Amino acid sequence: MRFVVHQKNKSEIPGKPIFIGTKKQDTIHITLMAYDDERFVEVTIETIEDILKYTEQYKNVWVNIDGIHDVAPIKKICTLFNIHPLIAEDIANTGLRSKSDIDDDFIFTVIKMMFLGKYQRLHAEQVSMYLTKNILFTFQEQRGDVFDPIRERLRNKKGRIRANNLSYLKYCLLDTIVDNYHLLVEIFGENVEELEDRILSNPNKDILESINKNKIELNYFKKNIRPAREAISNFKNYKTPLITKREQHFFNDLNELIGRVYEALENYKSMLSEQLTVYSTHVNYKLNEIMKLLTIFSVVFIPITFIAGIYGTNFEFIPELKLKYGYFIMWGFIIAVALSMLLFFRKKKWF
Amino acid sequence: MRFVVHQKNKSEIPGKPIFIGTKKQDTIHITLMAYDDERFVEVTIETIEDILKYTEQYKNVWVNIDGIHDVAPIKKICTLFNIHPLIAEDIANTGLRSKSDIDDDFIFTVIKMMFLGKYQRLHAEQVSMYLTKNILFTFQEQRGDVFDPIRERLRNKKGRIRANNLSYLKYCLLDTIVDNYHLLVEIFGENVEELEDRILSNPNKDILESINKNKIELNYFKKNIRPAREAISNFKNYKTPLITKREQHFFNDLNELIGRVYEALENYKSMLSEQLTVYSTHVNYKLNEIMKLLTIFSVVFIPITFIAGIYGTNFEFIPELKLKYGYFIMWGFIIAVALSMLLFFRKKKWF
Amino acid sequence: MRFVVHQKNKSEIPGKPIFIGTKKQDTIHITLMAYDDERFVEVTIETIEDILKYTEQYKNVWVNIDGIHDVAPIKKICTLFNIHPLIAEDIANTGLRSKSDIDDDFIFTVIKMMFLGKYQRLHAEQVSMYLTKNILFTFQEQRGDVFDPIRERLRNKKGRIRANNLSYLKYCLLDTIVDNYHLLVEIFGENVEELEDRILSNPNKDILESINKNKIELNYFKKNIRPAREAISNFKNYKTPLITKREQHFFNDLNELIGRVYEALENYKSMLSEQLTVYSTHVNYKLNEIMKLLTIFSVVFIPITFIAGIYGTNFEFIPELKLKYGYFIMWGFIIAVALSMLLFFRKKKWF
Amino acid sequence: MRFVVHQKNKSEIPGKPIFIGTKKQDTIHITLMAYDDERFVEVTIETIEDILKYTEQYKNVWVNIDGIHDVAPIKKICTLFNIHPLIAEDIANTGLRSKSDIDDDFIFTVIKMMFLGKYQRLHAEQVSMYLTKNILFTFQEQRGDVFDPIRERLRNKKGRIRANNLSYLKYCLLDTIVDNYHLLVEIFGENVEELEDRILSNPNKDILESINKNKIELNYFKKNIRPAREAISNFKNYKTPLITKREQHFFNDLNELIGRVYEALENYKSMLSEQLTVYSTHVNYKLNEIMKLLTIFSVVFIPITFIAGIYGTNFEFIPELKLKYGYFIMWGFIIAVALSMLLFFRKKKWF
Amino acid sequence: MRFVVHQKNKSEIPGKPIFIGTKKQDTIHITLMAYDDERFVEVTIETIEDILKYTEQYKNVWVNIDGIHDVAPIKKICTLFNIHPLIAEDIANTGLRSKSDIDDDFIFTVIKMMFLGKYQRLHAEQVSMYLTKNILFTFQEQRGDVFDPIRERLRNKKGRIRANNLSYLKYCLLDTIVDNYHLLVEIFGENVEELEDRILSNPNKDILESINKNKIELNYFKKNIRPAREAISNFKNYKTPLITKREQHFFNDLNELIGRVYEALENYKSMLSEQLTVYSTHVNYKLNEIMKLLTIFSVVFIPITFIAGIYGTNFEFIPELKLKYGYFIMWGFIIAVALSMLLFFRKKKWF
Repeated sequence: MRFVVHQKNKSEIPGKPIFIGTKKQDTIHITLMAYDDERFVEVTIETIEDILKYTEQYKNVWVNIDGIHDVAPIKKICTLFNIHPLIAEDIANTGLRSKSDIDDDFIFTVIKMMFLGKYQRLHAEQVSMYLTKNILFTFQEQRGDVFDPIRERLRNKKGRIRANNLSYLKYCLLDTIVDNYHLLVEIFGENVEELEDRILSNPNKDILESINKNKIELNYFKKNIRPAREAISNFKNYKTPLITKREQHFFNDLNELIGRVYEALENYKSMLSEQLTVYSTHVNYKLNEIMKLLTIFSVVFIPITFIAGIYGTNFEFIPELKLKYGYFIMWGFIIAVALSMLLFFRKKKWF
Repeated sequence: MRFVVHQKNKSEIPGKPIFIGTKKQDTIHITLMAYDDERFVEVTIETIEDILKYTEQYKNVWVNIDGIHDVAPIKKICTLFNIHPLIAEDIANTGLRSKSDIDDDFIFTVIKMMFLGKYQRLHAEQVSMYLTKNILFTFQEQRGDVFDPIRERLRNKKGRIRANNLSYLKYCLLDTIVDNYHLLVEIFGENVEELEDRILSNPNKDILESINKNKIELNYFKKNIRPAREAISNFKNYKTPLITKREQHFFNDLNELIGRVYEALENYKSMLSEQLTVYSTHVNYKLNEIMKLLTIFSVVFIPITFIAGIYGTNFEFIPELKLKYGYFIMWGFIIAVALSMLLFFRKKKWF
Repeated sequence: MRFVVHQKNKSEIPGKPIFIGTKKQDTIHITLMAYDDERFVEVTIETIEDILKYTEQYKNVWVNIDGIHDVAPIKKICTLFNIHPLIAEDIANTGLRSKSDIDDDFIFTVIKMMFLGKYQRLHAEQVSMYLTKNILFTFQEQRGDVFDPIRERLRNKKGRIRANNLSYLKYCLLDTIVDNYHLLVEIFGENVEELEDRILSNPNKDILESINKNKIELNYFKKNIRPAREAISNFKNYKTPLITKREQHFFNDLNELIGRVYEALENYKSMLSEQLTVYSTHVNYKLNEIMKLLTIFSVVFIPITFIAGIYGTNFEFIPELKLKYGYFIMWGFIIAVALSMLLFFRKKKWF
Repeated sequence: MRFVVHQKNKSEIPGKPIFIGTKKQDTIHITLMAYDDERFVEVTIETIEDILKYTEQYKNVWVNIDGIHDVAPIKKICTLFNIHPLIAEDIANTGLRSKSDIDDDFIFTVIKMMFLGKYQRLHAEQVSMYLTKNILFTFQEQRGDVFDPIRERLRNKKGRIRANNLSYLKYCLLDTIVDNYHLLVEIFGENVEELEDRILSNPNKDILESINKNKIELNYFKKNIRPAREAISNFKNYKTPLITKREQHFFNDLNELIGRVYEALENYKSMLSEQLTVYSTHVNYKLNEIMKLLTIFSVVFIPITFIAGIYGTNFEFIPELKLKYGYFIMWGFIIAVALSMLLFFRKKKWF
Repeated sequence: MRFVVHQKNKSEIPGKPIFIGTKKQDTIHITLMAYDDERFVEVTIETIEDILKYTEQYKNVWVNIDGIHDVAPIKKICTLFNIHPLIAEDIANTGLRSKSDIDDDFIFTVIKMMFLGKYQRLHAEQVSMYLTKNILFTFQEQRGDVFDPIRERLRNKKGRIRANNLSYLKYCLLDTIVDNYHLLVEIFGENVEELEDRILSNPNKDILESINKNKIELNYFKKNIRPAREAISNFKNYKTPLITKREQHFFNDLNELIGRVYEALENYKSMLSEQLTVYSTHVNYKLNEIMKLLTIFSVVFIPITFIAGIYGTNFEFIPELKLKYGYFIMWGFIIAVALSMLLFFRKKKWF
């Protein structure tokens, strides 16, 4: 499904969360994971106030909300956890560009999660992440995401994820999203490379369409990844007590990774431009062939048609017409003219 | 409204303020805001000398003059506040390129303020800012600007604006102007991206016009933003006691921001170039199709028209004409020729 | 043989080595070289467990396995030497991109070895290298490689290779592979330069095909060398006790070398693009010539054919037809028209 | 007037000043300004030996020679002031590229002064500057230059020019020349921008000529400014006691300025290239329209002309000819064919 | 004469000097210059062993060998002075790319010397330089080189050349070669600039050929200068006791110089590309004019020829044919049609 941007809704009353976007899911689904080095608990939240019980007991609480069309719970959460109304509004608006707001006591990140959905179609879904001292909210448009490996690592105490705090978890989530960019761009790149080989060995009329389809896909990638890159590079520039120096290092790595992804996109972009040139040259070459054919036919037949026309005139006195073999002489002449034209083209190596 | 540059008027007598430009407003309107950390006053100035009362009492005085076609008050202000006649002249000339003159006791900045006016049309209006120790003058072509949020912050003592001095206010004004560049460029960029999708999926003959309109708009942006970028980068290079070290930092940020805006423009520029290539390839492709059609018709009909011509000759002795079914034999022959031509094109996959 | 990428097989059960790729060899062939400064032994291994005897006695053991279609021995080796199942899987998959996994106790590198095989055809073969403390495994798709000079140096105690440890050997192997890239790219480059001279002096219709063939070859190079460059640049970024500081220096040199190779490729790429433009201009020029010819013929014959047509009409009263020399007057007129057309083109320097 | 380069004369006997170039002025005119912080004198020199009187009395002497076609005085000056014969030769040769020879006891600079002369035409005139301890010679092709503001500053003791020594004066002269480059390039740039708007909104056949004229002008700029840039950058690289550390700073600024001028030229160059592409696309588009028209006419008339041809044959037995309304049936058929062709093009949206 | 690369001969038995290349000279000519600060001797060597006499007496000996087709003396020299057989082989192979082998006790450089020979034709000749402690060998393909100014300086004790050792001499020789590159590239550049002006003001059909000839020449330059640049940049990277720190500085300068030469080449390359685009646009424009002419003629004559055809049909009953002035009415109609077509084109401003 193609992602739809609802720019015009931007003029809504600010600070009041209104769901903006195409409804992707009907019911809201909230899951909570609370953990520290020792303990781990995973529950489905029915009443929003229940979250408070976990934030009191655990150092790290991750609340994932699937479905943001129903703004009431979002509003409730925001009120309960003292989240700024403007941010609440942003969460409910799925037409935002990726961005990061980094402050001393919270980090709010909007990012597009890209993945291959049903029938291998490219999906982009907006994920909003709100991180404060001991709670991380993630808001998604619908169930299903790319975070399962991280959930697994949390459950199994695999890697250093449980020992670290929530900003590390946030890093992991962003890293997973960017890794998916990388994967998708690589698959895209292989299509482009394959197309290149096809264009070079056998260009036909589907090629232009294929190039254009690839270009549209590339634009879709760039539209999603370019703001994401800026959102992530923000972590490098701003300092906040929520991110330790050691974690800063991870965000820098992430920044480099998304930079490489973007570089790869640029590379594929220039490949597509080049392909267009190759195709264009091929079209020119074929035009030449077409014109040669037309010219050969015209140049051969135009003079002889003229000759026939001459003897079709009704002048009273045309000496040739009286000749007994006039008709055959005309044919002889016509054939001579036609052959000499053909010889001329032969000599010019037109065929 | 398109901005008009009056280069030729440059040769006027220097040092005498003459209004150069299209008249945008009839009456001059002067507002004054005087403030310090504690106090705030906002008045409309009728007599220019009144300004002096506020500069005596307040640390920070911002005088905004809307309407510069009437040069008398400008001259009066300049005389009263000891502003150099050449600067007075610059203020009255709306055809200047953006620039910054930074000196030890004043900073004079000319910059284009861009915004969307009525009917969503792009406007550029020249704003001149003259900053000295405790007074900041801003001269605008007409009422209405993008500074209202800053006025609000001054009134409400919101943020650090009241606690800071006038160079910070000047930074805020420039920042607002640049932020508007950013916004407008982003809207422009979305148009360009949309156009790209349209070109790739369905190019038609309006496309060339759309590309060209976008290019004109882009040039308009670049013409206004490029000098503005230089004007702002000047703050980085020159040192003046009017700007504290801490504020210098803000101007550096501003410099980066306008740099990013310009970079985005460059990006859209290369997108438009690319679009032109795509369109050009499409035109080539269609030319090919047209020529194919012409060639098929010509190549099929030229030989058979020739045959008909032959039997239209008036030779006395043409054996075929005497045959009873000569006419039908000719038709048979003509159809055979035409079909073989069509088969030839079929084999070549021309249709 | 062109290398085939089996992307779809990526979804196989992870961690279980399955041979993915086209079978290149039927029997597995394992050779072992064990050496230190003093001693050197070279044997063919029949039973995998025999390797252990050498690792116990020698500081440096290089085991080369030719043929990876039979996954059983690979599995056995991996189990015996405690190699992670995911790496075992990678070894058996010949469709990987080049890469380096660098850890504290092992370095695993996948790289494409390129060489000219039979009939001067370009080959790419995947080589996987697994290095731990005192053993280096190299897995190749089939017998025959570019490492013979290194084997010779090991046997003859030539250079510093015997005095150094296995990471130096690994560097030498990679260096040889990259040197071969260099050689092949240079040969390719000479073809491109030769083609350029041919295009510039005498462009004909085989040129487009030659350019395209070169482009395909270039893409093949880039596909193999680009990931290799990343794999090698990894050695610069990551630190591991397996590589001494002095050896790090060699890897940096190698990194520079492959960078230069890639740069040369980019250079040839832009040469090919330029060649396409030259060819395209030539095609345009020829189209012009064709159209001139067609136009001359058409413009000369169209009016005179029309004149003949006029006198072929059957009106009852056409005064000219009654003239005694009407026919000759018509001829005179026709010739005058034709000549004036030709003069017109002559004046325009069309021929 | 276009500047003429006389490359072939380079092979003259070296070391002997011969005037090479087009004669621009008949009489030589020498003016001298001698000054120090306190004193200032300005005289016209008739006898070259008179210069010595001033060099004895004043710390700074600037001798300006207008007219270099008469080599005798140049030779005399060079002999008198111990200037190397090769430099004397360079002074007399107006076909040199800009350059700087920097030595311990002299600085010799050749630079092109550009300005708008009569009828707004671009002029380039060679200025040679020879600086030693207390004398600066400037040789110009003819009277009239861009140095008047500097003369004014010298006379009026305005700015720091009188307090500084001759290398500062030299800097001022070069700065004025480069400032003029800047001005001219900006005027040129405005023409280019204006042309761009014209191309985008209404391209017609004068455009190609305008683009080409701009390109020629651009080349003229680049030819003069590129070597000037190198000549000025030389001051950065070489050290000489003639330039103090503080002045070095000015030369660095000058270097930056000319760098920016050159950058602007590059920018306009790429704009012109882009304009060519736009124009080219437009030409392609129009070709398409032309071909459409030709094709519509051909495709409509070719079949119906064929039909008429058929009934112009002289077969003895053509059944249709005998029909009473045969002629009108033919017309009906012809109209049907023509209309169906037109409908076909209508459906294809060709008109 | 165009330089011929003999790549295939590379597979000769290594280490045995065989002359590879086109014979340029029949007799070998050896000259020797021996010098130190005080003494200088210049002799022609007949017997190779004589060289030893000078190496014993002088600190610096420069042996120049003209003619390398006769491998016997080369072999003898190499044996006598302990030069590695592989280097001897390289000396005799004139098909090498420029390169530098820098070791602790020798420096071997192969470089192409370019100069204008007879009839202003571009020549490239291979020069091999072998430098050890107190002897420098230079091997040239034939007599005549660009080193005469250096010989003069050696003879006349001009400059610091005699006071320095052989690595300085080698630097001087390389510098002279690179200076000649510079000169030739500048002459080439002037041709390119001149061509540009010609293309812009009056493009005709010789232009394409001229561009292509320039491109071939450019490629010839790049082929020779690119490897030379690498050979010279090697001096920067490698350290050898043969080059003092102070001399290292000279080699760095040389490196910069050749870098600038290469940069200039790149500049001319992009100028040529641009010229091709200009020419291509011009060709397109002319095609447009041609097609306009063809279309005007076709569109005017096709309908009227059809009309004539109609009245050439032999239907028994064609009312118009019976009219007394039918023929003149037809003419009237034909003229009306033709004129309206012409008016249509006039309105479209086609002529």
